[in-house]
Amino acid sequence: MTCGTCQLEIGGNEIMKQFTVRTNARAEMIDITDRIRILLKESRIRSGICHVFVPHTTAAVTINENADPDVPQDILMELGEIVPYNNHYRHAEGNSAAHIKASILGASETVFIENGDLVLGTWQSIFFCEFDGPRTRRVIVRLAALDSLK
Amino acid sequence: MTCGTCQLEIGGNEIMKQFTVRTNARAEMIDITDRIRILLKESRIRSGICHVFVPHTTAAVTINENADPDVPQDILMELGEIVPYNNHYRHAEGNSAAHIKASILGASETVFIENGDLVLGTWQSIFFCEFDGPRTRRVIVRLAALDSLK
Amino acid sequence: MTCGTCQLEIGGNEIMKQFTVRTNARAEMIDITDRIRILLKESRIRSGICHVFVPHTTAAVTINENADPDVPQDILMELGEIVPYNNHYRHAEGNSAAHIKASILGASETVFIENGDLVLGTWQSIFFCEFDGPRTRRVIVRLAALDSLK
Repeated sequence: MTCGTCQLEIGGNEIMKQFTVRTNARAEMIDITDRIRILLKESRIRSGICHVFVPHTTAAVTINENADPDVPQDILMELGEIVPYNNHYRHAEGNSAAHIKASILGASETVFIENGDLVLGTWQSIFFCEFDGPRTRRVIVRLAALDSLK
Repeated sequence: MTCGTCQLEIGGNEIMKQFTVRTNARAEMIDITDRIRILLKESRIRSGICHVFVPHTTAAVTINENADPDVPQDILMELGEIVPYNNHYRHAEGNSAAHIKASILGASETVFIENGDLVLGTWQSIFFCEFDGPRTRRVIVRLAALDSLK
Repeated sequence: MTCGTCQLEIGGNEIMKQFTVRTNARAEMIDITDRIRILLKESRIRSGICHVFVPHTTAAVTINENADPDVPQDILMELGEIVPYNNHYRHAEGNSAAHIKASILGASETVFIENGDLVLGTWQSIFFCEFDGPRTRRVIVRLAALDSLK
C-alpha cells in the first residue's frame, strides 16, 4: 500500500490462501512445497513470513527431506511403531493413533520468505502428513510481508 | 493507526495478553479456545495471526479434537506410555517425563484470524497441556493484524 | 519508518539474521538463547515476534530448561529410546533416527518480544538440537516489529 501524500510504501500486508490435498493411503506424507511456492509467486511478496496450517486433527504438517523418498517412509514407519494403531484407546472411532501423531508433529509450520522465495535448507521440503486417510484434506497458507529494517 | 495527512489506515498492529490456567491433575489437557476467542474479540482485530505461547518447561500447547473427550484422554495415556514417568532419568526433580513431553508437543501454536474469529477446522480446539501438575499456569497470546493484500 | 508528511511512525518492520552453531556429538542440545538476544539487541526492536528456524532435516529447535543440564541430557536419552538408531530403516545414509527426531521436535519456534527482550518463562531456554553431528549448523532468526494497539 502506498501513502497518497508522501508516496512511501507503508505498512505490512498479508494474504491467506488455501488448497486441497488428496491422500491415497491411511498414512502418507505428500510434498506440498511447490504448491506453496505457487501461492507465494502469485502474492508477489518479496520478503516476510509464510505460515502453513492444517485444519484437521488427524493430519499434520512437517518439514523434512524428500530427496530420498525413503526418509518420509521411515518417518511414517517409525511413528507407526511409536504410536500403534491399536492400544486400548477409548475413542470409539478407531483413529486415536492418528490424533496422537497429529499432536506430535503439529498443525503448523513457519517458513521465512526472502527474494520472493521460501528460505529452506538444501534438503528441506514441506510435507502434508496424512494419518487417517485416504481423504481430501485442506491446507491454509498465510503470507505476510513487512518492511525490511535497514 | 490512521495517517493524519492521507487518512489511510497504515501499518500493522498487535497486542499481547495473558491469562492463567488452574490444572487439577499431574497430566491434563484443558481446552482454552474460548478464552483465546474472548481476547480476540476484545482486540477488535478482524484479520491476522494469533500466536499462543506457554512460558513453562513442563507444559505445552497443542491443537486437537475436543468433541469427544476420549481424544485428549487417549493422547495423555499414549504419551505416558511413550515417555514413562520413571526411566533412569538423571534430573533429580522427578519430572523429566514432563520436560520431554513439553518438547515433543511444543510451547507454541500459530492460528490464523479471519472475520474476527480464529480459523480452526471443524474438530480443532486449542489445548493447554499440563504434564507436571496440579499447578497454576500462564498462557500468553499475541494477536497481530496486518493490512490485507487486494 | 517515518512518514515524510505526517511524521507518524508507520508500518511494521523486520530483520532476518543467521548464525552458525558448531556441534560436538552425534546428539547434543546447545543453548542458543544468548545468541538470539544479541541479534535482538542489535535490531533495537522493542516489541514484536521472534521466529527461530533451523534449515536442516536432522536437527531441530526446542524450548526447555537449562538451569539443570540433566534436563537436556534426559531429553536426548529418552528420544534415543523412543527412536532407536537402528530399526530396519530404508534410508541408506544411516541417519533416519535423526530425521524422525527432527520432525518430532520441529524446525521452528516462536517467541514474543517485549521491552526489547525475549518473553520467556523463568526456566525456558531456546536449544539448537543436533541429532546427526558433529557438524557446523545454521540457525536463522527473524525479528518482526509491529505497532502496539492501545
